[in-house]
Amino acid sequence: MAEAASAPSPSRAVTGDSEFDRDTAVVRREPGVYDIDLSAGWTILGAVNGGYLLAVLGRALGDALPHPDPFTVSAHYLTASRPGRAVIRTETVRTGRTLSTGQASLFQYDDEGNEVERIRVLASYGDLAGLPDDVRTTAKPPAIPPYEQCFGPADGPDPLKGVSAITDRLLLKLDPATVGWAIGQPSGKGEMRAWFGLADGRDADPLSLLLAVDALPPTAFEMGLKGWVPTVELTTHIRHRPAPGPLRVAITTRNLAGGFLEEDAEVWDSEERLVAQSRQLARVRLA
Amino acid sequence: MAEAASAPSPSRAVTGDSEFDRDTAVVRREPGVYDIDLSAGWTILGAVNGGYLLAVLGRALGDALPHPDPFTVSAHYLTASRPGRAVIRTETVRTGRTLSTGQASLFQYDDEGNEVERIRVLASYGDLAGLPDDVRTTAKPPAIPPYEQCFGPADGPDPLKGVSAITDRLLLKLDPATVGWAIGQPSGKGEMRAWFGLADGRDADPLSLLLAVDALPPTAFEMGLKGWVPTVELTTHIRHRPAPGPLRVAITTRNLAGGFLEEDAEVWDSEERLVAQSRQLARVRLA
Repeated sequence: MAEAASAPSPSRAVTGDSEFDRDTAVVRREPGVYDIDLSAGWTILGAVNGGYLLAVLGRALGDALPHPDPFTVSAHYLTASRPGRAVIRTETVRTGRTLSTGQASLFQYDDEGNEVERIRVLASYGDLAGLPDDVRTTAKPPAIPPYEQCFGPADGPDPLKGVSAITDRLLLKLDPATVGWAIGQPSGKGEMRAWFGLADGRDADPLSLLLAVDALPPTAFEMGLKGWVPTVELTTHIRHRPAPGPLRVAITTRNLAGGFLEEDAEVWDSEERLVAQSRQLARVRLA
Repeated sequence: MAEAASAPSPSRAVTGDSEFDRDTAVVRREPGVYDIDLSAGWTILGAVNGGYLLAVLGRALGDALPHPDPFTVSAHYLTASRPGRAVIRTETVRTGRTLSTGQASLFQYDDEGNEVERIRVLASYGDLAGLPDDVRTTAKPPAIPPYEQCFGPADGPDPLKGVSAITDRLLLKLDPATVGWAIGQPSGKGEMRAWFGLADGRDADPLSLLLAVDALPPTAFEMGLKGWVPTVELTTHIRHRPAPGPLRVAITTRNLAGGFLEEDAEVWDSEERLVAQSRQLARVRLA
C-alpha cells in the first residue's frame, strides 16, 4: 500500500456518478438491446478507445445476464468506432449456476443509416464476491517507481501532450523506463508500465478494469515502431474485485512477427492483488 | 533442429489422409452448416478434448470464410461434448482484404433431440503464407530435454498409462521436470512442458496447433491439485505455419486464485519458431 498511498487523491467522484459511469451508461431499448451515445471523451487521435468500448459492452452484458461480473471477455474488433450513436444487441447464450455466457455486438450507422458492426464479444459472467479467498499466485507485481517519479501527459513533450481526449480522463503515469518513445529514444523492449486511475478519482471496479487493459500507449512504440496499432482481438480475465487506490498496469510483448504482435497486460491493485490479465493480438506497420 | 531430429519418424501419415484429418472432417449440409460425428478417439476420461473440438470448429470456419488460416480463435465452452453426432452452425461476421471474422457454434442433441450448444467461438482468419517474414521475437524456446529423455504414457505408472483414448493418437513426451504429478510428487510449480506430435506422423499445420494448445495434462496437477479442470474460455493465436517435425509445448500458470487459473501455452516448431500462443481460463477444485 506504501507506493499507492503516495498517489494524489483528487476530489473523488463516486462510482455510479463519474465521467466513466456517465459515458458508459447504456439505455435499454427492449430486453437485450441497448442504446448509447459513444463519448468523444475517450478517443485517441479521433478513434474511440478499445477499452472504453469493452466497458460499454461489458455494462450491457452485466444488465442482460443473471451474473453481475465479467470473468472472461473475448472481443473481436471489426471496424473503427466513432463518437456518436450506437446500438448494442446482446444474446444470452447459456445460464448456469456459477457462470452465464453472453454475446454482444455494437453497431453504428453508415450514411444510409444501415447498421455497421464495430465489435463483437463473447463473455462469461459470474459473481466475484462469491469466489473463495484461496490465492496461490506466483506472479509478482510489476516493479514501477513510486507514482511521483512517473510521467504523465503533462510532464513530457508531444506526442505525450494533449494528443488524445482520453488523457484528460485518465490518471496515467508511465514508468520512466518505458517512456523513451516519447522523446525519440525507445528502449527497444516490448514493455509498457504505468500507474492507472480515473482522473475524477472514481475507484476501479471490474468495468474500469476492461478500460485499464487497453489504455496504455502500445508496446510497439518502445520497440521503435510508429503509427496505429489496431487491435484484432482482445481477451480479458477479471480475477478479483480491485481495491480502492491506483492500479499498476504492466504490458509485455514477446512475439513481434509477420506484422502482428501480442500484448499481455497485467493489472495489479493497491493491495498487491493481480486483478486482471489480458492478451490482445494487434497489427503493426513495420518500420 | 538438433533436438527435434532425435525424435522418431513413424510411418508418416499424409496431411489430408490421417486420423486427425478424418476425425475433424466436417460435411457441409448447406452453406455455413456442417455435420460431424465427434470421434471417441480424442477423449480424456470420456470427455471430448477441447483442443480437438477447437480444430473441428476451425475446420468448419476455414471452409465458410474466404481466408484459409485461423489467426485468432476465441472459444467459450458451454457444456461438455460427448462422442457422436454434432452440427456446426457458422456465421460470416465480416469479410476484409487481409482478415475475415466468423462465428461458429457446435451443437449436440438432448434426449428429446433438441440442439444443445456445446461451444461457441469467434475467430479471425487470414492467410499465413501472405505475412511478411519480419521476426523480432524475444521469447525463447522452452528448455525441454531431448525427446528420448522425456516421458510418454507408456513410460509411467497410472494415471499416465491408458487413461485416455487421445493418448493413443498423440506423440506426447513430457519433460521429466513436469511429470512429478504422475508419481504423486508434483513440483508445486504451474508448469507443464512436452514434445508434441500426432501418433501417425502427420505433420503439424494450423489446425493441429489448435489441438496442441489444449492437449497436455493440466498445470494444476503439478500444483498438487486433482480432478477435472474444465476450460471456461480458450483463445489461441496462430502466428506462423509450423515446420515439419515435433513441436514443443510449454504451459505456465501464474495466477491460481478464487478457484480459477489461467494456462498460457506456447507452441514452438522444429525451426525454433513460436508458431502459436494461447491462454485459457479454467476452473479448479481446490484441494
